[in-house]
Amino acid sequence: MTTTPTTRDDCAERDAADPLARFRDEFALPDGIVYLDGNSLGALPRATPGRVADVVEREWGRHLVASWNDAGWWDKPRTLGAALAPLVGAGADEVVVGDGTSANLFKTLVAALRLNPGRRVVVGEEGNFPTDLYITQGVVELFEGASTRLVGEDDAGLAAALEPGDVAVVLLSQVDYRTGALRDMAAATELAHAHGALVVWDLCHSVGALPIALSEAGADFAVGCTYKYLNAGPGAPAFTYVARRHHATARQPLTGWHGHAEPFGFTGEYVPAPGASRFLSGSQPLVAAAALEASLDIWARVDMAGVRAKSLAMTDLFLELTAGTGLEPVTPAEHARRGSQVSLRHPDGYPIVRALAERGVIGDFRAPDVLRFGFTPLYLRYVDVYDAAAALVDVLKTGEWREPRFDVRAQVT
Amino acid sequence: MTTTPTTRDDCAERDAADPLARFRDEFALPDGIVYLDGNSLGALPRATPGRVADVVEREWGRHLVASWNDAGWWDKPRTLGAALAPLVGAGADEVVVGDGTSANLFKTLVAALRLNPGRRVVVGEEGNFPTDLYITQGVVELFEGASTRLVGEDDAGLAAALEPGDVAVVLLSQVDYRTGALRDMAAATELAHAHGALVVWDLCHSVGALPIALSEAGADFAVGCTYKYLNAGPGAPAFTYVARRHHATARQPLTGWHGHAEPFGFTGEYVPAPGASRFLSGSQPLVAAAALEASLDIWARVDMAGVRAKSLAMTDLFLELTAGTGLEPVTPAEHARRGSQVSLRHPDGYPIVRALAERGVIGDFRAPDVLRFGFTPLYLRYVDVYDAAAALVDVLKTGEWREPRFDVRAQVT
Repeated sequence: MTTTPTTRDDCAERDAADPLARFRDEFALPDGIVYLDGNSLGALPRATPGRVADVVEREWGRHLVASWNDAGWWDKPRTLGAALAPLVGAGADEVVVGDGTSANLFKTLVAALRLNPGRRVVVGEEGNFPTDLYITQGVVELFEGASTRLVGEDDAGLAAALEPGDVAVVLLSQVDYRTGALRDMAAATELAHAHGALVVWDLCHSVGALPIALSEAGADFAVGCTYKYLNAGPGAPAFTYVARRHHATARQPLTGWHGHAEPFGFTGEYVPAPGASRFLSGSQPLVAAAALEASLDIWARVDMAGVRAKSLAMTDLFLELTAGTGLEPVTPAEHARRGSQVSLRHPDGYPIVRALAERGVIGDFRAPDVLRFGFTPLYLRYVDVYDAAAALVDVLKTGEWREPRFDVRAQVT
Repeated sequence: MTTTPTTRDDCAERDAADPLARFRDEFALPDGIVYLDGNSLGALPRATPGRVADVVEREWGRHLVASWNDAGWWDKPRTLGAALAPLVGAGADEVVVGDGTSANLFKTLVAALRLNPGRRVVVGEEGNFPTDLYITQGVVELFEGASTRLVGEDDAGLAAALEPGDVAVVLLSQVDYRTGALRDMAAATELAHAHGALVVWDLCHSVGALPIALSEAGADFAVGCTYKYLNAGPGAPAFTYVARRHHATARQPLTGWHGHAEPFGFTGEYVPAPGASRFLSGSQPLVAAAALEASLDIWARVDMAGVRAKSLAMTDLFLELTAGTGLEPVTPAEHARRGSQVSLRHPDGYPIVRALAERGVIGDFRAPDVLRFGFTPLYLRYVDVYDAAAALVDVLKTGEWREPRFDVRAQVT
């Protein structure tokens, strides 16, 4: 924190010196807005429309079924997984792309329960994204005697939940979608393992936002989406990480033919493929996968340590510039505990977010009272952060958000 | 069948009189090939690239998260389901689009088992597509005491399997992917119901190929893909049909937030949505969904009785023109038992299909010995059928398929 307030000129200077600044031109950002919702839906890379059109018009339209082999469609879940692996600190053979986050949570939780027979408790987080909680309920219902135990954000709560020694698996989000709080992946994994539990990490709000070290942390499984910080487009295919030590033994329940050891043998008996491929089920939407491929081409050139440094500088700056406005920060001040978003609490958060959007600053709202702003270092500038904060401060000062038209309740994901 | 052989001129005359001929121009077919693999991957509609580009560049690129509401992204599984419903003889509220066929088989089978407590046998088909068999195994493994019982193609075998009165659910493909045999949906459904079992229909090889009457048949559930006869592109989202009488009680296990009664309430407890929406799980790939939307726009103008008439005329023609070549027809001769493909058996089926492809006739091969040719009335002409048959007859006559280069084993789906 500086003692004199940061000016817009200071921000412009930072932009001029920013090693990530060159990536901004690779995104097709709409004019006149500051987009602070890339933690919900990432912006469109300029290369994506061309890549998608190529898959549609050439691979599908001209080469038709031949593309299953010639264009690598069949192996896409593995080749995209290998391209994504460095972003999560995994081996190329430990990540597969396919299905959605909800389905992948289901698969990994069931696999973890089966790897830990005799234990029937699944530990989840009270504040986790609803689908994590709901899928956990769906899984627990399928296992006789299974139950859920919920914990808060702190590791002390987690330790207490693990204490009875009956926990099969812990499902944790690395970054909390609402507060932006970051968990210590290595510490939580170690804690779980020390109590005989496996861990499934949900990386939806951290992948592409900060360096992730799944292998180093000893994680068992992880899932995540690709349409937030990874910019792969609305509803783009998700991914699954399976630690190599579980490749021969993990058994997931959605036993479709793409996960078979010999998918073209067309035999009647399901035999899981060796490796992470056993977590695949059926054909994947290859037109959507094309967009992920285009965005992973960008990520292959990105230094994640630089992303993290800029992310923290931006969230620091936004917190500094919005201090003293009556908005209560929910995101931890401590860097080691902060993801790449700033969440601020206000009882009238909803109309404030709407009034801000009218000024071209796009954030979002999460019930009951959280204003949420995501910071995406690849396409945001420090001056954008400055302008967004200035607009927010002004919206609060003028009270314009009190106009009735801003209180129409509609929701975005 | 005519007594004098059909000539190419006869075929050209039929094309001139074909009420479906006008649809051919709506597809971007590669030059110089006859595509008889639309039962595996349908051809590209000309309107699709533009629709996909619009979703990518405008809805995603320019409007970003606002499109979840403004572009109807959130409701896409329902609006696409409603558009697809007439093709399967269902009410608009009985079909949702999302996930893949394998996942949807899993969901519907589990739901059916839960609706039929006390019964634990799942009846499947010996010759069904592998994923149907594999997913059944995956489901059975989750239910204590559950088991699978396999039947052949005839209803007598099905009746015998149902006889013990312990069958919870029967999973049947309306059209067999390998033989092209068509089941009597109404009869099989009635038979299952008479024995207290529910029925899940797999429509992958029938939807878009012939009129389907799920409601009239009293079917309980159905699933199907959209990338074969429906032309929605590789790996396009699949669909699920849930009979209205099960809307309030069916419970599927992939309980993600899109299937929640109040998805934006962000409450911790899963409460299934009313209606078929409870079969949804997570966000869908909207770029891929755009292609489905484009193809359903074509289907909205298609008379399915006309499709069926042309399909039967084409398969009749192909069978007539390839008779006496030593290829053994596997597809039933009887119209009421035939889907929209012709399967022919030959011990060297694989190199024959490859040699035929070199002549520009694209069919496919299914182990161990089946040559498979799909007939898609929207973009195939009678002259195409004639040319394909002539090429096949000639390949067999010349024996060119015996050249070693055609025996490289590689597979397409």
